[in-house]
Amino acid sequence: MPQVSEKGKAMPASPIRRLVPLADKAKERGVHVYHLNIGQPDIPTPEVALEAMKTWNGQVIEYTNSAGNLSYRKKLAAYYRGIGIDIDERNILITTGGSEAITFAFMATLNPGDEIITPEPFYANYNAFATICGVTIKTVASFIENDFALPPVSEIEKLISPRTKGIVIVNPGNPTGYLYSREELEQVAALVKRHDLFLYTDEVYREFCYDGLTHVSAMQLEGLEQHVIMVDSVSKRYSECGARVGALVSRNQEVMAAGLRFCMSRLSPPALGQIVAEASLDTPPSYFQAVYNEYIERRNFMVDALNRMPGVVCPKPKGAFYAMVKLPVDDSDNFARWLLEEFEHEKQTVMVAPASGFYSTPGRGKNEVRIAYVLKISELKRAMEILAKALDTYPGRVL
Amino acid sequence: MPQVSEKGKAMPASPIRRLVPLADKAKERGVHVYHLNIGQPDIPTPEVALEAMKTWNGQVIEYTNSAGNLSYRKKLAAYYRGIGIDIDERNILITTGGSEAITFAFMATLNPGDEIITPEPFYANYNAFATICGVTIKTVASFIENDFALPPVSEIEKLISPRTKGIVIVNPGNPTGYLYSREELEQVAALVKRHDLFLYTDEVYREFCYDGLTHVSAMQLEGLEQHVIMVDSVSKRYSECGARVGALVSRNQEVMAAGLRFCMSRLSPPALGQIVAEASLDTPPSYFQAVYNEYIERRNFMVDALNRMPGVVCPKPKGAFYAMVKLPVDDSDNFARWLLEEFEHEKQTVMVAPASGFYSTPGRGKNEVRIAYVLKISELKRAMEILAKALDTYPGRVL
Repeated sequence: MPQVSEKGKAMPASPIRRLVPLADKAKERGVHVYHLNIGQPDIPTPEVALEAMKTWNGQVIEYTNSAGNLSYRKKLAAYYRGIGIDIDERNILITTGGSEAITFAFMATLNPGDEIITPEPFYANYNAFATICGVTIKTVASFIENDFALPPVSEIEKLISPRTKGIVIVNPGNPTGYLYSREELEQVAALVKRHDLFLYTDEVYREFCYDGLTHVSAMQLEGLEQHVIMVDSVSKRYSECGARVGALVSRNQEVMAAGLRFCMSRLSPPALGQIVAEASLDTPPSYFQAVYNEYIERRNFMVDALNRMPGVVCPKPKGAFYAMVKLPVDDSDNFARWLLEEFEHEKQTVMVAPASGFYSTPGRGKNEVRIAYVLKISELKRAMEILAKALDTYPGRVL
Repeated sequence: MPQVSEKGKAMPASPIRRLVPLADKAKERGVHVYHLNIGQPDIPTPEVALEAMKTWNGQVIEYTNSAGNLSYRKKLAAYYRGIGIDIDERNILITTGGSEAITFAFMATLNPGDEIITPEPFYANYNAFATICGVTIKTVASFIENDFALPPVSEIEKLISPRTKGIVIVNPGNPTGYLYSREELEQVAALVKRHDLFLYTDEVYREFCYDGLTHVSAMQLEGLEQHVIMVDSVSKRYSECGARVGALVSRNQEVMAAGLRFCMSRLSPPALGQIVAEASLDTPPSYFQAVYNEYIERRNFMVDALNRMPGVVCPKPKGAFYAMVKLPVDDSDNFARWLLEEFEHEKQTVMVAPASGFYSTPGRGKNEVRIAYVLKISELKRAMEILAKALDTYPGRVL
């Protein structure tokens, strides 16, 4: 029998998705599962987007341009210019979600054996993209006690080797919800310039910044024009995770030329998703105001509720819709499984993402989980009650 | 300035898409371009599919299961059972087009440096997928004089080395339109078993078989349960190229487990495409009958028209909607460029895919092009007139 490949064996199961079969079994037992594990917002997709799909009058669902529809790229470039990122459609390749943008960015710039550096914890699927490309992720620790702020740049610099080709930042952070300040970004920029690296910046949560803070894009940093490769997506901004429309954005023309050849190899990004995404650019400001108010309320409620639970620590995230939460448990992997397999409270339970999947340093994150506040306040309230009950009765509770 | 990767440099531009900028320029000059270069059918998408999209009453375009919606996989499995492929939903992973299915199949089973063997000419993007995975494609020649029938299996066997992990077949063939007989497939099967290889079978044109011939799937071959990995797609079957919905199908559970982890890494295949694809399974037989009649008429007309042109040779394809055509030209790459850059007839020209991109042996295909008969008869008629005029006046004409 022919064997699967080394990469086939090495591919990590998603820490967010690997417990899904257990959740399905819980549901089969009649237990309701509150999904705090995945960044799937319950926020409605903008009406203007759904309307565009329903009134589309084409007869054939055709391939689009491999780089994405020109009309969409032009309109998207105008959106970027409107938020202070001065580019045009030639700097944009439309991808199948942010995931494909990351894969193509890595493929186009990294050789097998190369190294990239990112603060830990980090978005777990970067491990998968690194495996696909045969590259190594080195991490520099950030800490819950410090709200997961950028580690000292000197710590990052210590990890740089001749194989280091780039730095990865996710801003606002997934899973941390941390928002980098301009000062932090300029420190990274200086490092990137000093060592002639790529800076991969994942900014898919750009619109989700709280407490009066504004987002600074790495695309706005001076002197980094040839270094910055931005990953973007409509998934979170417009609650269109299933549309699978993202973008690879860069001013580096060699990167764009190579990226385009990867785009050609898969022919076309999703045509229907692009119809929806392009229409979404006309979403009225009132939509975002309502979404903002909703998330602020959820965040404030959830962070308060969590910090009131004995032994639980939850920093207040400044962006995105995730919080990393320290729990009084022996092992958050076990706890997350136990929630789905053994626990229930009035026929209900919660699903969380164990944090170990977001760390590469063995042992780190063992008592942390990522919680996404993507449920209505009423449901979030109930989910927090259930989580508190669970922590009370979990056999592996510590302290 | 940081440099792009070796793969970024090595990625081939699509032979089908690389001339698109020249076509765009021709259009800017006011020249109408008949697109014979790409497998984008003009056949309408089934009404039942468009209707499902327009009447979808969800509020949020959510991620789907990473493996694809369960309801779709179940219904798709029933479709396969209906055509004699006895599988269930556990043997199916829904992918972002057939392209992603190929990439995941290769990634899950091939190590960098491994070799795969395929008859030449072959679907050009396999070069790109091989580059992405760092594997080598070895080819065994098939010939236009022989309608591109399967080369003797002994020729394939000569190429097998310790690094050989699999055989790739596309059936019906792109770009050849050749349909493998059961006898040919059984010869391949014996070889695959003898050397314990994977058999990657790309069957996206399954429904397009002519002249009373029926399609035999490699999934129906006995004793190959652990060897066969099938690539499928709704793109051609339902004229839904832009939906980006394909499938990776196998009975090998290790391959499926590894494939699922690749699927998890990109979270979800397109949700809207899946809505359309699932509804498409209810397309009435009358649709396929009409499509069949249309293609038969186009093929017969086109093959006749081509073979009437002096110096032109076009075998009659038994499947798909492509023909490889031998032209009396010095170099089909030059000819294809010349058609777009220098030639016009009454403000019209045609675009063809130079065949060199479908061969890996240097020099082969230099006087061949791939023509897709994806235009209405009236347009195809006009396109053939223009092509004849062009061949009359092309400065690089030979003979």
